[in-house]
Amino acid sequence: MVDDSSSVRIVTALRRWITTAPSGAKLPSTRSLVAEHGASPVTVQKALRTLALQGVVESRPGVGTFVRAVRAARANDYGWQTAALGSPNKRIPQLPAALQSVPNDVVALHSGYPARELLPERLVRAAFTRTARTDALITRPPTAGLPELQSWFAAELESATPAGITPAPPSDVVLIPGSQGGLITAFRALVGAGRPLLMESPTYWGAILAAAQVGVEVVPVHSGPAGPDPDALSRAFDQSGARAFYAQPTFASPTGALWSPGLTEQVLEIVRHHGAFLIEDDSAHDFGITAEPHPVAARDDSGHVVYVRSLSKSVSPAVRVAGLIARGPARNRILADTQAGSMYVSGVLQAVALDVVTQPAWRTYLRKLRLELRTRRDLLVRSLREHAPDARLETVPQGGLNLWARLPDTTDLDRVVRECAAAGVVIGSGDEWFPAEPTGKFVRLNYAGPHSGSFPDVARVLGRSLAG
Amino acid sequence: MVDDSSSVRIVTALRRWITTAPSGAKLPSTRSLVAEHGASPVTVQKALRTLALQGVVESRPGVGTFVRAVRAARANDYGWQTAALGSPNKRIPQLPAALQSVPNDVVALHSGYPARELLPERLVRAAFTRTARTDALITRPPTAGLPELQSWFAAELESATPAGITPAPPSDVVLIPGSQGGLITAFRALVGAGRPLLMESPTYWGAILAAAQVGVEVVPVHSGPAGPDPDALSRAFDQSGARAFYAQPTFASPTGALWSPGLTEQVLEIVRHHGAFLIEDDSAHDFGITAEPHPVAARDDSGHVVYVRSLSKSVSPAVRVAGLIARGPARNRILADTQAGSMYVSGVLQAVALDVVTQPAWRTYLRKLRLELRTRRDLLVRSLREHAPDARLETVPQGGLNLWARLPDTTDLDRVVRECAAAGVVIGSGDEWFPAEPTGKFVRLNYAGPHSGSFPDVARVLGRSLAG
Repeated sequence: MVDDSSSVRIVTALRRWITTAPSGAKLPSTRSLVAEHGASPVTVQKALRTLALQGVVESRPGVGTFVRAVRAARANDYGWQTAALGSPNKRIPQLPAALQSVPNDVVALHSGYPARELLPERLVRAAFTRTARTDALITRPPTAGLPELQSWFAAELESATPAGITPAPPSDVVLIPGSQGGLITAFRALVGAGRPLLMESPTYWGAILAAAQVGVEVVPVHSGPAGPDPDALSRAFDQSGARAFYAQPTFASPTGALWSPGLTEQVLEIVRHHGAFLIEDDSAHDFGITAEPHPVAARDDSGHVVYVRSLSKSVSPAVRVAGLIARGPARNRILADTQAGSMYVSGVLQAVALDVVTQPAWRTYLRKLRLELRTRRDLLVRSLREHAPDARLETVPQGGLNLWARLPDTTDLDRVVRECAAAGVVIGSGDEWFPAEPTGKFVRLNYAGPHSGSFPDVARVLGRSLAG
Repeated sequence: MVDDSSSVRIVTALRRWITTAPSGAKLPSTRSLVAEHGASPVTVQKALRTLALQGVVESRPGVGTFVRAVRAARANDYGWQTAALGSPNKRIPQLPAALQSVPNDVVALHSGYPARELLPERLVRAAFTRTARTDALITRPPTAGLPELQSWFAAELESATPAGITPAPPSDVVLIPGSQGGLITAFRALVGAGRPLLMESPTYWGAILAAAQVGVEVVPVHSGPAGPDPDALSRAFDQSGARAFYAQPTFASPTGALWSPGLTEQVLEIVRHHGAFLIEDDSAHDFGITAEPHPVAARDDSGHVVYVRSLSKSVSPAVRVAGLIARGPARNRILADTQAGSMYVSGVLQAVALDVVTQPAWRTYLRKLRLELRTRRDLLVRSLREHAPDARLETVPQGGLNLWARLPDTTDLDRVVRECAAAGVVIGSGDEWFPAEPTGKFVRLNYAGPHSGSFPDVARVLGRSLAG
């Protein structure tokens, strides 16, 4: 009987042998290959036939099997691709520091994710174990998403909806494979290549990347610790003719800004006045410390706010699921775009996400997370004030994962990042967070990473580098 | 003690009550709410405070809590979006028949996926159960993918690589969340909006969708049961100035074509001559029936072939994982594009995919699948010949999931699709498979769907409709 996997194994072994054998060398006999691999003669012969078909060996009946003459190894030459590829239309930025992997033994404050010990690992594990017994493993979910998970996202937003506002129904929720895909879809479906998009500056590097990939023309709007200035926003709409504004109103990355209720109403009014969309990225929704999230989308039922909320950061990086809520024709365009892009989101990941967020223990976890984030934030703030007074915080954020510290304008940012890395402290240069030129020297410091006990040391390292 | 989840529950219940209550109505007393919800007075008061903050109720101290006057319900009006959205740049085709969900009791021959009973369910379930115990659940994998899975994709291609060709190393493999994302990435990174891309016609509707989304200019190249005509391909390169050709050389969808070794060499020669890329979609790799797959990418080491192989169809639709192999600068551009688009693929799905395809039982499964596909294909072919002789097969495919049948040119395709649906048989119109005008009336019939025992009935229904 032919054993396919043995045959494949023998082919692989013989190919290895051949790479070191001279051209024309005789292969071991069938009999010795049978003995060596513990396979049947039929299996060995199948392997030899495969090698012959691949042109690696030739068989001379009655004599044996021989290594064929091969072309000499040569260096790769892909020079022809230069002409075929041409110059890239839009320069996609390099992979930002926030996605870099680092060894376990350094103190990493560069990442955009919480440390593993902050994640609801037990809940996620139980959810996967339960889901492994269901049909979600083997079936294809509806293209807009699991109805129960659509309902959950809609109910979450509804719970923050004031009276008089009609909440978005579950059918306005589109499940997407992570918020990055959602931003790209929103930028492409609502704005489009070559057309203007207002963005807070500084803002989330993933959104800058998404804008570059779609090829929208980014119009930066300065945003500080209290959010964007309404007058500047209004002017930017007028001057650019933009029809969309991307922002993180709740614990913005990197500044930590939380929009006041007054600012929320002003921005909504500006957006309505200009017949435009607010693309609200609520990725820090679950990371409130001393404030509750109040999504802007909950205060609008006229289809002006397109809302994206990811679960990857608070549930698990393996659960790449986000919900996008949009209303009216915008929702249809976004659904068509996301279907063309990814067709559907793995039903397993949707089922796991739903399982986790509907457990009673999910609320317990969120409460513990809040305390944990508070402790870490406060320790890093105290450490910086004590040991790195030159790194000034314009605000202590009421939520999120990061401090945004301004360094003296004369700082050589590359040198500081390099010196910290050499001392085992990985920080990200603030420059990556500006869609246009940076307005100063900044670092973003993630207090949700591992090794939080080392924050005083981190601050000492940074302080020494700034003083030096 | 405040119980957050009870408080949320009470808020939700009261909001429901309020929607049916007249404006100004008095809410039940705190005492009766405590009794009704089994919650503490503090929890009930928190719920009432939340409602007050949301503007739904107002509290009159010493008197009670009252429903606030709300705006009258009104119909949604998203008309303003028309101006904001403008005309779409490129019309994205509607969701094709192949992705439609249908009730369980119809015979569905329209889908692009194998029926559940053909999937390795036991293997997938065991892989999820094992993976649920690992760190893949809670950690972020490298952006290019799990190294072991990169190695597996590279080894699969290497096993088909002839002597003298340098196989692609694992580092040339980029893991992507499904082949749809891979096609979009390849079209965007290698071609770009507004530039020409040669495509087989007819071809996979997902690729047509991907081309529309990226906005490439599609140049169709006729492709029959033996694949594309090399002369026509060469002319299309000359006339369009295209630098890339998208094709499915192995069990193409919808035609079932398998390129001969001679055609493979000719196409490679044409592609090289024009300094162009072949974007090879090997999505039917695991569905050989009377032929083995021989990826074109295995015969090229000069970076001309960009290769995409999905596991979603043969492992499980829940395991949205595909491998993309590209070499040289093209690989770098593709990696940057896929990172900007999705950042990384869920580590759980990658770990499950790796677990499934490295089990010895995977090869056993593939052998059983081959027999099963053969039985189904042959039954559908016999049934059509007997009961629907007007549906002519230009070829009996040597692999894949579909028959591609040509109907008489005078057929009213919409009527046939409608009549079959009315009789409980869902088929997809062939028109969806042509990037330009269809060259005839076709239907694609998936023989890997559920209810294969009904194929004779299916053929009778189709035959009656064609005769009618």
